[in-house]
This record gives sequence, C-alpha cells and structure tokens, in this order.
Amino acid sequence: MNLDPKTDLTFTRTINAPVSLLWECWTTPKHIKNFFVPKPHSVDDCEIDLRVGGRFNTVMNVDGNQMVNEGVYLEVEEGKRLVFTDTYSEDWKPAADPFMTAIIEFEDDGNGGTTYTATARHRTSDARQTHEEMGFFDGWGTVATQLEEYAKTLE
Amino acid sequence: MNLDPKTDLTFTRTINAPVSLLWECWTTPKHIKNFFVPKPHSVDDCEIDLRVGGRFNTVMNVDGNQMVNEGVYLEVEEGKRLVFTDTYSEDWKPAADPFMTAIIEFEDDGNGGTTYTATARHRTSDARQTHEEMGFFDGWGTVATQLEEYAKTLE
Repeated sequence: MNLDPKTDLTFTRTINAPVSLLWECWTTPKHIKNFFVPKPHSVDDCEIDLRVGGRFNTVMNVDGNQMVNEGVYLEVEEGKRLVFTDTYSEDWKPAADPFMTAIIEFEDDGNGGTTYTATARHRTSDARQTHEEMGFFDGWGTVATQLEEYAKTLE
Repeated sequence: MNLDPKTDLTFTRTINAPVSLLWECWTTPKHIKNFFVPKPHSVDDCEIDLRVGGRFNTVMNVDGNQMVNEGVYLEVEEGKRLVFTDTYSEDWKPAADPFMTAIIEFEDDGNGGTTYTATARHRTSDARQTHEEMGFFDGWGTVATQLEEYAKTLE
C-alpha cells in the first residue's frame, strides 16, 4: 500500500493473540464495546453490517456526552484487512465533512500472535495534524492494548 | 436505496440494448471512450481496475484542455450495479475535495432492453445544485443516448 506521510498516520505492533480472535473482536458489536475507545470513555452502542457498503455505526460516550459516528466498510477481507470510514453512511450517502479512513491489517506473526497495523488516511495534511494532536498514537495505541487484554479474556 | 432529494440527482430511462452489453461498455476502457462524455468532448485516456477499491481513472478532453479525473470503484456487482467516485484514488487515498459518487444500475426490462438508472450523490446541497446547473440531466442523458447508439454498433 502506498502511504502518504503528509496525510496519513500509521503504526504497527505485535499483539499477543491470534488473528482469528482479533478479527472477531473487530467485527462484533459486543466485542467492540470492550476495546474500541480508550477508557474511561466507552461505547454505548454499535451496529455492524459486515459487508462492503454496510454500516459501522458507533455511539461513543465521552465524559457523559454521546457522540454518534456513522460509517461504512469499504473492504472486508476476513482475517486480513478491514477498511472503514465516516466518509459515507449507508447507501453510499457522502458525509459533508468526513474525517478519516481507517485501515486495520492483521497478519499471523508465526508465534501465535498478530502483527497489527492501524492506519488512518486523511483528506488533508491539516486533518492529519489535528488527528495527531488529538492523540492518534496514544489513543489508537491504547485501543490496541485494550484489544490485546480483552482478547486474552476470550481465549 | 434511500436517496436524499436535497443532495442527490437521479434519472431512469430505457436503453434499447441488453444489460450484458451495457455492462461491458461501462467497464471496458476502449468502450468508455465512445460514450462517457458528451460529444464533441472526448476521453483521451481511461484506466480501469474493476474491483472494489480499484482505479477508474479518466482523462477528458474539453475544448482541447485535458482534465484528469482519478477515482475508484466502491461496488462492482456484475450486470447489476456499478458504484464509483472521485472521493478516493487507489489504496483508499481520500481526495481533499471530492465532488460526487455515481451509482449506475442496470435491470433487464423483459423486452431485450435495459432499465438504466444513473444517480449522483453529493456531500452537500450546494454541490448538488452546482452539478444540476452544470447540466447533469442534459449531460448524463446525452451520455445515455451515446451509450445506446454505441452499444448498437457492437450487437
């Protein structure tokens, strides 16, 4: 994949859980609620229609305020790659001011764990910078740690 | 499909050619060049990678000026539905200021022809209005007429 350092943010780390389990966590509403936002923030609701163009809607709870996020999947390659975005809601309705497109990649690391790559692509370098200042690396890193800890409880 | 009259433009007409032929025209660069823009404008180049996320790039020639348009396919449902947009280029790189998402639908009309529906979805009502004022109905209608005439030469 060709990334653009001016507009993209990405990191790769190893997660000590198998690909199949991480895939299940990322694609099931009841699991999403357990890792998708850094605690103490939480996910109040999550709806998933796991197909290209299908909805990935979440309601996050940040300090008691609900934030509704509507999105769709752009790619669903089981056990390999999940692409989603707030650029569209269902039926390819374009959002007026979309923020980002997320690409989550999973690869068996040969030791029972997963090489996990999370990428956020943005429309502009300003959006990238805003996301970095919002705490992309801390935030998405915390999500990866929460995912690892939660996945352990399912093994 | 749920459309939004504030941001979408759409029309349906019958084209006197079978679905399979219209699908082939819409998904093959050498055919695209024969109908995709209202004459006397023309298509100087077209690249297609016919899969979700694959490129649909065109170079149009308008009064001698080349206009490069990079896009991708969002849905490729053979003989039924083709969705493409300038919202992304390949590898899901978001465009800074995308214009529209096009949905072309084909349905056998039972008489050897095709019920053809072309829809353009926009991010805002302003973008919709701009597109209408640019001549959406005349322009896309002309494209449909050119498609019908060109398809006849292939039968």
